[in-house]
Order: sequence, then C-alpha cells, then structure tokens
Amino acid sequence: MAADKSISSKQLSRLPIYLKLLYSLKDKGVEKTSAPQIAKALQQNEEQVRKDLQVVSSHIGKPKTGRVVVDLIDDIETFLGYHDATSTVIVGVGHLGGAFMNYSGFSEFGLNILAGFDVDENLVGGKINNKEIFHVDSLEEYIVNHQVHLAILVTPTDVAQNIANRLVKSGIKAIWNFVPIQLRVPEDVIVENVNLASSLAVLSHKLKLNLEKEEKL
Amino acid sequence: MAADKSISSKQLSRLPIYLKLLYSLKDKGVEKTSAPQIAKALQQNEEQVRKDLQVVSSHIGKPKTGRVVVDLIDDIETFLGYHDATSTVIVGVGHLGGAFMNYSGFSEFGLNILAGFDVDENLVGGKINNKEIFHVDSLEEYIVNHQVHLAILVTPTDVAQNIANRLVKSGIKAIWNFVPIQLRVPEDVIVENVNLASSLAVLSHKLKLNLEKEEKL
Repeated sequence: MAADKSISSKQLSRLPIYLKLLYSLKDKGVEKTSAPQIAKALQQNEEQVRKDLQVVSSHIGKPKTGRVVVDLIDDIETFLGYHDATSTVIVGVGHLGGAFMNYSGFSEFGLNILAGFDVDENLVGGKINNKEIFHVDSLEEYIVNHQVHLAILVTPTDVAQNIANRLVKSGIKAIWNFVPIQLRVPEDVIVENVNLASSLAVLSHKLKLNLEKEEKL
Repeated sequence: MAADKSISSKQLSRLPIYLKLLYSLKDKGVEKTSAPQIAKALQQNEEQVRKDLQVVSSHIGKPKTGRVVVDLIDDIETFLGYHDATSTVIVGVGHLGGAFMNYSGFSEFGLNILAGFDVDENLVGGKINNKEIFHVDSLEEYIVNHQVHLAILVTPTDVAQNIANRLVKSGIKAIWNFVPIQLRVPEDVIVENVNLASSLAVLSHKLKLNLEKEEKL
C-alpha cells in the first residue's frame, strides 16, 4: 500500500534497485530484511533507504523483526505499476527499436509493447517477437483505438519532433525518448530521456584520458 | 583539434547532441553554422553552446562567417574518439545483451564489439551479428589477449559484482553498466551506469499520477 505519493525522481529511480536486491533475497529464501540490511548490501545511506521505503510501503516492520521480503516486493511493484501493465508502442523499428521489440525484459517492468511503427516498407507488415509492425501513417489511429498513453521514441533525429507532435495530438501523455534531441512537448506530457550516445561519450572520453595518463607514467 | 582537455561530464554528454544536429545540417547541404544557430535549433543556451564547442574545436570561425560544418563534425568526432574505435566485449548475452550485440548503431559511436560472453550452453559457441559468443570462463584470457579496456556489463544482478571484479583483474578500465547495482571498483576504473528500469520507473510513475489527476477533473 502506498503511504504517500510525494516521491522525488531520485527516490523513484532507486526503487528498481531495491527491488532487484529483494528478488535475490527472496530467491535465496531470506524471509525478512530491514532498511539497515538493504543499505549495507547496496552500499547506500541507511536513512535514505528507510525514507525511500516509507514512501512506498506501510510494511514498516517492528524494530528488530524487520520487514517481510515478499510484502516489500509487492509494495514496490504495486507502487511502480508493475502489476498493471502499461500499454506502449515503439516508434522507429531500426537498430535499437528492433532490439527493444525483441527485448522481453521490459514486461518485467510493467511495460506491454503492443506494436512497432516504421516507414520502411521492408519492415511494415512484418513481426518482431510476435508484435506487428505498422506503417507510421496509421500511428494516430492505433493510439486512439488502443488508448495508448506511453510511447517509446527511437526514430531518426530529424523526424523525432514531428513524430512527438503527432503522438501528443493522438493522446500520448508520456514519451520514453531515446533520440538525442530535446523534445518540445506541452506541459502535461512527460518526457524521460535516455541518451546512450551521451552516456558512452562520457565513458569513452574518461577512459581515453586515463589510458593516456597511464602511458605517461 | 582539441583545444583543452578540461571538460565536464555535462559538456561531454551534450557533444553527441551537437553532432547529431551537425550531421543533419551536412545532409541538407548546409556548409556553415554558428553557436547561435546551433543553440537555436536545439533550444539551448547560446553561451553554453559556444563554451562547449570551444573546448573541443579550434575552428572558432570568424564573427559573421561561422564555422565550417564538416570541420566541426570532425573535431567533435575526434574528441569523442569516434575515429579510433574502442574495442569492447559484452558480458551477459541475455535479452538486452543479445539486443546490444545485434545493434550495429554502437559502431557509429566508436565502439567495436568484439565478442559476447555468457554461461548459457545454448548460446556459447554461437554467433550474433557475426560476433562470437564465448563461455564466461574464457573472459580473462580473451580480455588480456585482445587488450580490451572497456566492457559492457549486462549480466543478472547477482553475478554482476563478481564479473566486475574479474573484468578489473584482467585489465578492464571502464565498465558501461546496465545492471541496476552500484558496482564497487578500484578508483582508476570508470563506471558509467545506465539504468533503464529506473528511467522507466520515473516515467511510469509520473504518468500514473497525471492520468489519475485527469480522471478527477
């Protein structure tokens, strides 16, 4: 049961991490755990863990007895909406979009990928992982008919804003954006950006500097 | 030519975004551009764009004439190491790892995926996208022999730290970590985390709140 709905993005982003740990505890047959134990296992601040869990769970546990692992799992899963799957479509079935359609792991996170959309006639009409690929012309109709509110955007950069506009007009309220541009959307539409190229750029550059430093030693 | 090596992670993460825009300008036959033009196209702060570009490029351009697009592309690509491909291995050829092996797009970012590693006997000995999958037992030997410094970690959570330890012992200096745990590594090893589950959790939760709000209206 959710005790409170005021949760920060940082807190939210930590919940899947707790969940992963709790799954592994459950698999190992551990029945109870506590904020200090979780904090220690994840090398995080104990007070932070306690506060995070208090937001999502009323299973506070008595001091010294701890929380029941399966209850905690259920609370976090419910809070994150993993139990009621969110329908979604993927726009752009290129390299990464195709990989995502093939990736069954998203269903664990409560995502139900209904279909893919593309302009490539070699893809349209086909299926990946048993999900149909439609022409992007039918995007609006599909979203309205299937009452989809979330879309995964993996198009080429130059069409991304245009597609985002069409998504929003059709009723999309949240975009998981993998295209490296800053989308302009109305205030009530949420955009969460994942920029793999940026993440890799940071890593590669630091690696290069470190290797150069080592060579000099 | 890199004018200066002191660049922040935030600046680094913006470079691939400029690059994408510059590619599309080049495709459209645009020969020159300027910091103000780039800032406007990306809806970013002009001064920020100027500063970012000054770090990576000596092609400052005279006032009113602007910078040559292809030179700027070359400077950023060079700075990000896109020209000298970084060899990498993928550890964990499950859903996402397999998708990554299939994803040719990483090569654009200067990543050269050499091979995958897994424990699943159904995968070991096979190939994805013409890249071999080896048993994780041969991980150390492969990394040493091929002088690999960067690894992409996509294993199950419970083995991730152990694999990270083995990677570091074999000479890996940078880990692109898609496993939702905080890896413990020596100071000279760089870890860049991408947590898709956390990103999605933030998005899904905000969407849920917004939809509930709408229902009440």
